[in-house]
Amino acid sequence: MSSLPTRTLMVAAPCDAGMPSREHVRVDEGTVSSELPPGAVRLRALYLSADPYMRSQLRSNSPRKIAPGEALRGFLVARVEASTLETWAVGDVLGASLPLSTLQVVTGAALARTATWRLTGLVEDARLSLGVGALGMPGATAVGGLFDVLRPQAGETLLITAASGAVGLLVGQLARAHGVRVIGTAGGAAKCALLKEKFGFHEAIDYKAAAAVGAGELEARIRATAGPKGLDMVFENVGTTTFESAFRCLGMGGRIAVCGGIAAYNEATEPLVHISPLQMIYTAQRIEGFVCGPWLTLQRGNFLETMRAAIADGSVVVEETFYEGIDAWIDAFRSLFDGSHVGKVVVRV
Amino acid sequence: MSSLPTRTLMVAAPCDAGMPSREHVRVDEGTVSSELPPGAVRLRALYLSADPYMRSQLRSNSPRKIAPGEALRGFLVARVEASTLETWAVGDVLGASLPLSTLQVVTGAALARTATWRLTGLVEDARLSLGVGALGMPGATAVGGLFDVLRPQAGETLLITAASGAVGLLVGQLARAHGVRVIGTAGGAAKCALLKEKFGFHEAIDYKAAAAVGAGELEARIRATAGPKGLDMVFENVGTTTFESAFRCLGMGGRIAVCGGIAAYNEATEPLVHISPLQMIYTAQRIEGFVCGPWLTLQRGNFLETMRAAIADGSVVVEETFYEGIDAWIDAFRSLFDGSHVGKVVVRV
Repeated sequence: MSSLPTRTLMVAAPCDAGMPSREHVRVDEGTVSSELPPGAVRLRALYLSADPYMRSQLRSNSPRKIAPGEALRGFLVARVEASTLETWAVGDVLGASLPLSTLQVVTGAALARTATWRLTGLVEDARLSLGVGALGMPGATAVGGLFDVLRPQAGETLLITAASGAVGLLVGQLARAHGVRVIGTAGGAAKCALLKEKFGFHEAIDYKAAAAVGAGELEARIRATAGPKGLDMVFENVGTTTFESAFRCLGMGGRIAVCGGIAAYNEATEPLVHISPLQMIYTAQRIEGFVCGPWLTLQRGNFLETMRAAIADGSVVVEETFYEGIDAWIDAFRSLFDGSHVGKVVVRV
Repeated sequence: MSSLPTRTLMVAAPCDAGMPSREHVRVDEGTVSSELPPGAVRLRALYLSADPYMRSQLRSNSPRKIAPGEALRGFLVARVEASTLETWAVGDVLGASLPLSTLQVVTGAALARTATWRLTGLVEDARLSLGVGALGMPGATAVGGLFDVLRPQAGETLLITAASGAVGLLVGQLARAHGVRVIGTAGGAAKCALLKEKFGFHEAIDYKAAAAVGAGELEARIRATAGPKGLDMVFENVGTTTFESAFRCLGMGGRIAVCGGIAAYNEATEPLVHISPLQMIYTAQRIEGFVCGPWLTLQRGNFLETMRAAIADGSVVVEETFYEGIDAWIDAFRSLFDGSHVGKVVVRV
């Protein structure tokens, strides 16, 4: 029996406001026994995900906090390097929500408690990074939020906020293929051009340019772009004034799928948003929050097949930004909040 | 050809804030021709409804405003006194949303544009007032909001705000018969006792007593009454801090049916409510506004049969407060806002 080296992302200190850094997340060296106990797998990470929702793990006041000295959890793509479980064979590739380690032993019981999905045979080896993107949490979020929460009809108009992010790009392309008119918000002219030219959005709104004009300008631009009937649907990833601007432009029978709140993740306390109950009554509007769980675990639908088919037929083009090595994870994570990334941020181990 | 006398409720002047009075709504004398044109009915009103939603007709700034000098619209129960329409015979009784007149001629085209429902044969003549209550808009609102918007499971907990009103009393009793644990808010100990003793609510919260203790007390009482898992459902009729208190007590998978905003109807501008998008995401919560239209017109379900059966088997006890004569309509309407009424307010013509 010998031991194998592993490296793990650990919470070093809480970060209750502002941009997280290496002060808050460190990489620890450790070892894993080479002898596998019964009923377990040893997993070799191929790709680690960096996602905005992980920000709450670094807060001392969040129900999802992780104490300093414990491992950060997130989505990863891993290959089974050894197995004493019947369900997983050596060489299998899976996606899962687990501690972010380069090498780890996971019991069958622990696997049963978390989201896992099989990637073996779904795509060629060179595209396994999709397991933290279109074939992972962002894909499940896009499919679930669009088709089961918003329930689009062809010809309807959808606004996607933070449209150039991992989830937003998938939602926009899936919706367009479904016959929906798609509007995205993004920061800067370059991202807006990309939305329209590369990802087929019908319209793009530069929220930074709108903010430079003044309060109310984002709402005015959304209203003008939506047209006289207003928005039928909003896939909302931002929060604060973006949420409120979109809400005020919502038309008859409009609905908002609440997916994220990127504008607030680095704030000390969550800024609440204002809504008008009377508006919601007279237009029969709906606001619905959701997390990807039911879709990611295939309890609802089969997002893997939906996304695989959409990529195969070209209706969805995947955009990934790679960072190299677990030490770069914090840089990848920071890029989610400074507006620099487009599409899915992936750390290659 | 002769003419028949009629009396009609007219908007006399807009009322943009505060309690409406005879200054804002007057009764006009008029006549109706005794000779009926082709394709029309002459309707003799039996009961006129007074409902909170009508408040917006008196606002100069509402999309639902009615100009001074025009008739107020509302729900009524009427008997067909003459008919040149195949669909309605002399003696038929119907519910409809129409100008509030004691006698009026309505064309088939006008009937087709508004909500109408047949009451003939549904209940005995002495109970026809139910056509503006349990067998009218409040019944359709209760059935639609409870069964199709909230979609209750037996064993879940439901909070009804303004529970002693026309809609709230029906919702509470229908929900209890469905196996739901029912909590109601009402103003004062007497109404709270009535909710539990006469209408079978499991718990009642006196919002006036809570307000007298201080800010946060209503939320604390809702939380304590709901229990550790929080509220599964809210049937919301009030708005403002009541909405916000209920929202903060909403548990996993919780949903709010937004039905009314009685706290704001006499305010000059609608007070918005604060919600937390992040709370809604992590608990997969839903807020949904609705109006009774699809249920009242029987496009969705059959509220008439649901309510008739619930009254017949005793699971719903109906509470009505009568005012006598069209001149008393404004008093009936005012009672909706001063906390003095319980159940359905009906004006007997």
